[in-house]
Amino acid sequence: MAAHSTPGKYSVGLVQMTMSADPDANLRHAIAKVAEAAAAGAKVVCLPELFRSRYFAQTEDARVFDLAEPVPGPSTDALGKAAKQAGVVVIAPVFERRAPGLYHNSAATIDVDGRVAGVYRKMHIPDDPAYYEKYYFAPGDLGFRAFDTGVGRIGTLVCWDQWYPEGARLTALQGANILFYPTAIGWHPKEKAAHGAEQLDAWRTIQRGHAIANGCYVAAVNRVGHETPAGGNGDGIEFWGSSFLADPFGAILAEAPADREAIVVAEVDLARIEEVRRGWPFLRDRRIDAYGGITSRFLDDRS
Amino acid sequence: MAAHSTPGKYSVGLVQMTMSADPDANLRHAIAKVAEAAAAGAKVVCLPELFRSRYFAQTEDARVFDLAEPVPGPSTDALGKAAKQAGVVVIAPVFERRAPGLYHNSAATIDVDGRVAGVYRKMHIPDDPAYYEKYYFAPGDLGFRAFDTGVGRIGTLVCWDQWYPEGARLTALQGANILFYPTAIGWHPKEKAAHGAEQLDAWRTIQRGHAIANGCYVAAVNRVGHETPAGGNGDGIEFWGSSFLADPFGAILAEAPADREAIVVAEVDLARIEEVRRGWPFLRDRRIDAYGGITSRFLDDRS
Repeated sequence: MAAHSTPGKYSVGLVQMTMSADPDANLRHAIAKVAEAAAAGAKVVCLPELFRSRYFAQTEDARVFDLAEPVPGPSTDALGKAAKQAGVVVIAPVFERRAPGLYHNSAATIDVDGRVAGVYRKMHIPDDPAYYEKYYFAPGDLGFRAFDTGVGRIGTLVCWDQWYPEGARLTALQGANILFYPTAIGWHPKEKAAHGAEQLDAWRTIQRGHAIANGCYVAAVNRVGHETPAGGNGDGIEFWGSSFLADPFGAILAEAPADREAIVVAEVDLARIEEVRRGWPFLRDRRIDAYGGITSRFLDDRS
Repeated sequence: MAAHSTPGKYSVGLVQMTMSADPDANLRHAIAKVAEAAAAGAKVVCLPELFRSRYFAQTEDARVFDLAEPVPGPSTDALGKAAKQAGVVVIAPVFERRAPGLYHNSAATIDVDGRVAGVYRKMHIPDDPAYYEKYYFAPGDLGFRAFDTGVGRIGTLVCWDQWYPEGARLTALQGANILFYPTAIGWHPKEKAAHGAEQLDAWRTIQRGHAIANGCYVAAVNRVGHETPAGGNGDGIEFWGSSFLADPFGAILAEAPADREAIVVAEVDLARIEEVRRGWPFLRDRRIDAYGGITSRFLDDRS
């Protein structure tokens, strides 16, 4: 899209969904939500991570790979039609099948014309109890990315990426005005009483920090609902919703509840990015001559 | 210090001070505060940025360079004695004179034996209205640093550094269990009503974010009080105090008020670092193969 055609202000629509056991029903549900968000004024609509299914990484099961699909593929085709019809950008997370035995946790950015403008493959892959993603997903090999769309330049990352300032920085340095984080995060029911509030607060805080550090908007888009793993083993995960949009100063402009579906519609104002970055010009003073150690695992060679 | 001699838990003392126009009085005041913090149980005491003077960078005046001193020098000698006497580590910010015409905004880490264990020179130098630091300070050339002390390995950064995730990361990767940020930040009185709350919140949030991203403690140590510039021009700066200690999950363990002197004494527990990092093992999954762009000013070469 040519720069002159992009708006100075636009609304985003963050679709906080529950997922059923039926992938086709989830797709229909997502398409309806895209239309609903567009009707509410959103010009870019983001769906949650892996929205076509329940969060299958609670267990390791090879049959789950049947759910994967190529990009472009059925999900991006259907959402491309929805995007074009509504005249909105859609960020569509996909369980991507790249080759037999090679899968990614991806997010496709679909432009207002319905075409895939770019694909991001989740770079940081978690593995901890009930989030066995290293079994399912190869780490992304496309790097951190931003894409030009009908609403200007936007960046996509996925879930676990949200804990890494490097990912936010590298996407913002590509000129992204907003970072979208489709997500699937929640409470282990047994931990919720003791640690739930601080976990949610840490999740919100670090993403607000990315907005502040980079002077850009940050949108987190989570699923919601209590999902128990296939087979009924375990307590499952209570996904905590709480999708939000933070402004370039880290202020939360709008936030969804923790316990039910919602569409967060809130405004991005590119002039606000300029204002905040002029006031506290962090990008000017980065010590790029001294950051080389970032590419080390740990700096424990004290020789 | 040998690793086996360091405690698993220790208290920090964060000295939130007001500064008078008399550098010697400020030094005596700081020494008294070190003793006071030690008496309250602190094993490492941090003073605010440039604690020997009012915040002179509100204006550009070559006579101010008379305040600079070498490291080691009078301030570190006096505080070294105080450190040794109290048996504490002291983090002593110094307006460092390195050579005629070459000055740094530094922080000396003084060990429990009274000797300077290491010096950090502020890497990110601000320049915005009433914070004309680029006039006074050459950017640090020692890189980001952590030092072994009687309380184990600790890192120091200074003020404007606090807005840069890279600085926090590079210090934490050297094994620092806690990052100290001596600081001088406040409100422009005319902005306070409209923006004061969000500015303070952004400052607190991004530093809590560093704690979360790195699974380490973060201590911010600010001055307090309304200082008007020499000559009486301008409204001055109302330094907002609010010094705090955040734990490795970003939770604020203790915080000073915004409007008066205080010593924050709160506990660092190394087992908590281990616990938090095991729970959310961010360091394991860093994509060090893909972070090279961090050393670019901006990633606008789209060829």
